[in-house]
Order: sequence, then C-alpha cells, then structure tokens
Amino acid sequence: MQKPSVKMSEYFLPTLKEDPAEAAIISHRYMLRAGLIRQSVAGIYHWLPLGFKVLKKIEQIVREEQDNAGFHEILMPTIQPAEMWQQSGRYDGYGKEMLRIKDRNDRDLLYGPTNEEVITDIFRQSVTSYKELPLILYHIQWKFRDEIRPRFGVMRGREFLMKDAYSFDKDDASAEQTYYRIFASYLRIFARLGLKPIPMRAETGPIGGDKSHEFIVLAETGESTVYCHQDLLDYNPLDIKADDDKQQIFEDWTKLYAATEDMHEADKFNQTVPKDKQIEARGIEVGHIFYFGDKYSIPLKAEISLPDGTATHVKMGSYGVGVSRMVGALVEAFHDDKGIIWPQAVAPFDIALINLAAHDNNPDADKINALCEDLFNKSNEMGVELLYDDRDERVGRKFADHDLIGLPYQLIIGTKALKNNSAELKNRKTGVVEAIPLDNINSVFDRIIQEKQAL
Amino acid sequence: MQKPSVKMSEYFLPTLKEDPAEAAIISHRYMLRAGLIRQSVAGIYHWLPLGFKVLKKIEQIVREEQDNAGFHEILMPTIQPAEMWQQSGRYDGYGKEMLRIKDRNDRDLLYGPTNEEVITDIFRQSVTSYKELPLILYHIQWKFRDEIRPRFGVMRGREFLMKDAYSFDKDDASAEQTYYRIFASYLRIFARLGLKPIPMRAETGPIGGDKSHEFIVLAETGESTVYCHQDLLDYNPLDIKADDDKQQIFEDWTKLYAATEDMHEADKFNQTVPKDKQIEARGIEVGHIFYFGDKYSIPLKAEISLPDGTATHVKMGSYGVGVSRMVGALVEAFHDDKGIIWPQAVAPFDIALINLAAHDNNPDADKINALCEDLFNKSNEMGVELLYDDRDERVGRKFADHDLIGLPYQLIIGTKALKNNSAELKNRKTGVVEAIPLDNINSVFDRIIQEKQAL
Repeated sequence: MQKPSVKMSEYFLPTLKEDPAEAAIISHRYMLRAGLIRQSVAGIYHWLPLGFKVLKKIEQIVREEQDNAGFHEILMPTIQPAEMWQQSGRYDGYGKEMLRIKDRNDRDLLYGPTNEEVITDIFRQSVTSYKELPLILYHIQWKFRDEIRPRFGVMRGREFLMKDAYSFDKDDASAEQTYYRIFASYLRIFARLGLKPIPMRAETGPIGGDKSHEFIVLAETGESTVYCHQDLLDYNPLDIKADDDKQQIFEDWTKLYAATEDMHEADKFNQTVPKDKQIEARGIEVGHIFYFGDKYSIPLKAEISLPDGTATHVKMGSYGVGVSRMVGALVEAFHDDKGIIWPQAVAPFDIALINLAAHDNNPDADKINALCEDLFNKSNEMGVELLYDDRDERVGRKFADHDLIGLPYQLIIGTKALKNNSAELKNRKTGVVEAIPLDNINSVFDRIIQEKQAL
Repeated sequence: MQKPSVKMSEYFLPTLKEDPAEAAIISHRYMLRAGLIRQSVAGIYHWLPLGFKVLKKIEQIVREEQDNAGFHEILMPTIQPAEMWQQSGRYDGYGKEMLRIKDRNDRDLLYGPTNEEVITDIFRQSVTSYKELPLILYHIQWKFRDEIRPRFGVMRGREFLMKDAYSFDKDDASAEQTYYRIFASYLRIFARLGLKPIPMRAETGPIGGDKSHEFIVLAETGESTVYCHQDLLDYNPLDIKADDDKQQIFEDWTKLYAATEDMHEADKFNQTVPKDKQIEARGIEVGHIFYFGDKYSIPLKAEISLPDGTATHVKMGSYGVGVSRMVGALVEAFHDDKGIIWPQAVAPFDIALINLAAHDNNPDADKINALCEDLFNKSNEMGVELLYDDRDERVGRKFADHDLIGLPYQLIIGTKALKNNSAELKNRKTGVVEAIPLDNINSVFDRIIQEKQAL
C-alpha cells in the first residue's frame, strides 16, 4: 500500500511568491507559482510532484471511462517511421509542425503528433474479419507538435500528453453507433473532472473526414468565443448509464444550438435560440472527435472480409482528449485571485494540514506538533491524501501558499485550536471556516472519504 | 470502478501460432506470439493490451516501492535541450547512441537517453539550502538510445521505459545513507515482481562516479555470465521493513561474493567461496545504481548552502530500473516450452476461463455459456481479473493459446464439467489440475484474492 500523505518539509513543492514574467494567462501563472510545473525549453514542461499528481488523476479518470465503455488500452511509441505517413499522404502536408528526425542509419523518423497511420498499420497486421469488429483501441501517450509560437503554458505546449482513441467498424452504420458511444463516454469524462462540457459541431481540419465534434468548457479566460443554448448547461452527463441508448444521448445533446467561432451562423443562432437563452461566452476545447471512414484504410490498405465473403476497407474514426492541456483548462475554469480551486476529483491532495506553530517560538509547539503528527498518521491509515505543512515558515506565507495550491480543504491548527479545543476547517471554494472539536477531528477525514466516494 | 474482466471475443489479443522469424530469444518470441507486443521499426515496439497490462503492473510496483521509501515522483519530458549536455561535457561524448534533433527554429534538441543533466537543472532552480535535503526524485518515462544493433525484443530496444531516480545530499556521508536506502528499496522491487535479485558491484560506465551496483536475476537465457555465493539466493528482500537499518542491509547483501563478468576475479572467487557454494550462471541486469557525487553539480553549478553558511556542490546519485526491459526479463525467468508462466503479481489477468463449448455444436452449449457468463459477471463483482475465452475456436487452439499466454490459473468448463458437476482448475506453473465442484466455484476467486493480498 502506498501512503497517501506527505510532509512538506520532505516534499519538493517549490512555490513562487511573485508572478513569473513569462506567463501570459492565469493557468500558466498559477501552475508555475504553485510548483506544478517548470519550463524546460519553450513549450516543454517538467511536471513537479504536485502537478504530476493532478496529471495522473486526470489520466486515471479518462482511463476508467474508456475502459468502462469497452475500449482497450494499448501504448504506441512516441517515435514513428516516416513511411506510413508517406503512404497516407500526410508526410509532406504536415509541414514544420511535425518534428522530423533521422536516426544513426539515416532512416526518417518523426515524433508522433497523432497516430492514425500507426494504428491503421497495427490493425491491418492482425485483424482480417468483420467478426472482430467493432474494435476501439486507445492510448495515453506523449505527442509532439512543433508549434511556431508555443505559449499559454501547458495549454499549447509542444510536448503534450493526449489520450487518443481509434475505432474500427465494418460499415458506416456500425461506425455511427461507435461515434455515439464515444460521444457519450466523452461527456462522462469531462463531467467526472468537474467540468460542464458542451459538444459543438466542428471543422475536421488536418485529421479530415465527414463528421466532427469539439467538446468545449466555458471559462472567462477561454481561447475562443462560442455560442450555445443556455439549457445545455443544465444537462448532467453523469446521468448517462452504460446501458443507455447512445444515439438518443447524441441526439439530445446536439439538438440545441452550439457552435464554435469557426462554425457559428448568427442568423441560425438568432432564429433557433430565444434571446434570453442565447449564450455567447469564452470556451476552451478539451476534446475533439472525428469520423473519417476509409480516409486512412484505403491508402494504408486495411481491409476486412464481410459476411458475404467480399472485402472492404475498414471504417475508422479518431477521438482525442488533451490530458496535459486539461490541467491548464481546469485551472482556467476553477480559480480566484488567490490561486487555484481544485475540483475534488483531481485535487493533488484532499486536504492541507497547516501547523501554525512550526515557525514561532510557540510555547504550545510540542503539543501542536504532536497533534499534527497524530493527524498525519491517521490520514495515512484512513487513506486520506493529506499535505502536512510542517515547514518552518511564517504563518502568512503558509496561508498564501495553501490558497495558491488550492486543495479543497485546509485544516488549521495553532494555539487557538488548543485553547478552544477545536481546529479550524476552511473550505477553499466557499471560504467558509468551521470549528471542528479536536476529539471529533476524524469526522473530517470521514467526510472527505464519503465525498470522494460519491464522485 | 473499472471492470477487471474481459471477453476475448471483444478483446484485441492477436496470438500467433508460429514462431516469428525475427525473434532470436525466448522472451521476444513469446511476447510476439502471445500478443503482448508488435514491432513498429527496429527496436521500437507497440504494446498491445495484454503487454500493456503487464507493463503497467510492473510500473505500479516500482512506484509503490519508491513512494514508500519516501521518494517523490515527477515527470521530465522526453525531449531535452542540448545546452545542458554541452555544459556537463557529455554532448559530444555520447556519440551516435543519442538521438539528436533540430526543431523548426534550428535549435538543438535530443531525445533523452537519461536525465542527470535535466534533473540537476531542475534542482538548481529551486533548492538552495541543505535544509531541504536529502531529496530523492524519480520519474518513469520513455527514453531513447539509438542502439547500433537493436535486438532481443524489448530487452534491448531503442525506445524503452525506465524508472530513473536521482538523489541530492549535502555531503558524502549523507549520500552514502541515501545509497543504502535505494539499495534496499531496489531489492524489494525485484522481489515483489517475483524475482530473486542479486546485487553485484559494477562498472560505472558512461554515467561515471565512484560507486555502483547492478541488480542481476538469474535466467538460463541470461545475457551474460555472473558469479556468486549460493547463499545469496536464500536471502528474502521482502523481509526488509521500512524502519530497518539500511546500512546493515547493504552490508549483509554485499559481504558475500557476487560479480558480473566484467568485474569477476577468479582467484578471489575461489578463495572466498567454498566449491559447493560457487554459482556460475547466466544473469540479466534489471537495475543499476550509481553514486557520482559532484560530477554533474560542478559543471551545472548546482550549489547549496551549508549550516556554517558556506556553499557546496550538491552530491548526487542516479538509480535505474528498466521497466519495459523487465517484461522481457520476467519472461526469460519464467517460461516453459509451452509459453510464459507469469508470477501472480504481474500477470496480465489472474485467471483464464476457457469455455469449451463455444466452437462445437455442443448440445450443452446453452448451459455452459450461461455458466461461464455467470462466472464472468462474478469475477467482475469480486474484483478478480478474468480473461474469458468465449471465442469460436477449436479446443486445441484454446489450450495452446492459454498455455502460451501463461496466466496463473485456467478454469476449464465443458460437457465433462456439467456431467461431473465440477470444473477443472489448472495451475499453469505446476500443471496440477483440480476438480472444483460447480456450486463451490466462488472459492476459486476467493483463493485468488487471498493469494494476491499476500503478495
């Protein structure tokens, strides 16, 4: 069993007091200041312990939802051979965004920006019959796109973590049902991360194909303008169950107007959405799904046999969630002027324990330290992820750091706690402070466990 | 909650009947045949669902042991800037094994073969005082070494997954204690994977430094010859507890003779090891640890302040476990002429459920299918990872596939089972077949859960 809790004196959590000059948007600023990331070179970031924990929690939610929907996880390497991209016709077209590499034998390789070609190659080597379909494979792997102007921190990095799924079907009708399954699973992913996703019809761009939706979350600092019917914000994706009719879900979620800037039609918006239901807001893209039929299976010759003995090119789609970008998107969506406010499902720890006696020559220090040590041990036993601030730091710095880091709760213990026989429990989101009797402090951990189980 | 079990009819598990021509060693052969991996280009592999599951289980055991020892996980990117390697002096020396890349702005980048430079850079940006030490950071990330002759499948691939840890201490004495802590945690890692590790003094090679040990496991098909005292095989690393004196453990494990080919001294071996205790065998390197003091902190200027107010270069070590290579090493260590025999801790599933009626026009097919379906659902409820072979395949092919795949148990259900009111449970390792009354079949899952809890 891994111990869930850590002491800050033994941890690596370098917070910054000042705003870093290079950070133009709030998520970049807070992620640097709260010690989540550090830049290596432009558009390439190190994930420090706190940021890494958030990244892993997002990854795990994505994985669970994909597995529960019946998709299978694999892992394709980051480095790909150029040949398949030459076969698909995208090698020259992709331009300078593709990081091209020559190995010691002068072979043309590249750092994968996406995996349509590679997955088609894997498929054609092993699957030959419609009987093995539908099949949906996904992986969660680092990608590289050599952006001309990497910026906005992990929101538009060069090396980034993406979950990309690929579907294989015997015909368009089956592929359409697959598209709906993925559509529904994506809604659940974003909702479990604490977000309200709005699917919007989208351009297909360099992936190509017939059908495409973006999943947008609203945030004041969003990268583009989006337009939608307000009622979409009342839908709850967590109501979607495994056995539900996915086509119905798709139709329910797409019947109301929702469009990104690129696809917006002002006339249609005004005609179909009542004035008091019209939302024009800033949005962040967190997922993108595409159906492109045989765009890759024809040039790469991925054929399957059909029930009648004939052969056909397999019908494919691809489906992406930006995992590392999601960390930034969540900070954009959930923060205030003091720092980050993590949704409980992805918070790096559940609660901060702030020892106010660690710095001062406090006469009660021994008692307070013992009490905190006891709580630290209890959190480990109970499986609550607690970040114990036992640092020799000023009280003001501690409060500022924890508001910046943004864990859901702060448990504050100092002389006042001892005197009143009760600690202070602060809810980071609401700011509400509760007194918790010291002899009932376990109830705080119990509550957190219950809240997490309900997620 | 993720459902742990899958049906093979819906899974992606392309087994091969024939030995692939390109595979020179047993692990490569079995990993291809059992559908764990497929080659992309020389030395670069796709991890299919079954192989991916093994990789993740190994990764998780490594992670747990590192976390429990108090090390902190981060993630450094795969792509690194060349500058730091120029500063450390390794950029030119590393030769063609380093995959060198130019980005669109003609900046020199490289695909990290190891991370001493990068971690030193992260450290020097954030840590300035001895008070924050000792600090041990690790990450589990893909690396690239452009081997001139990639071979032996994942045992010597070009793109490979490594866990690399880096330690920072204020002086040599403290760093020595850190070395012992890591030494002990490594012994536990390999033992939890089902292996018997033997630490051996080793050359420091391109990492450099003063002190180094390799961790070797014995396997008939091992890559090199090793020599050791037989009693080392009786040591049990799982006896090592968190509070044990790590220096004592180090001394206990290193007092008996143990050396790789490179370091072997025949005279000393014969003088210090009784004839009947001399082991000369084939071994596989699964881990390697180095202490190199200020080799990187001097050129990269990573300084810390000491209690007396002076400054010093931080003392460092690095510590690697080959995670993807470990999958191959485990197959080399655990197999027979029919296929793989997974240790329970890393088996991709706990048990195979083999439905013998799925192919024939079996008059009992409905009953057998219903019984299997029921067991499949039960395994999901109980949290047992079950691979249900519901494929429309001949019985002989099914048996051969499951011996090849090598899950710890096979539960076999056909007409005979119905007639005798008992299923057959085969232990893959021992070959022993037990009759399990159908009304007591839950006991099999209970037993598996207990066995896994004891791991």
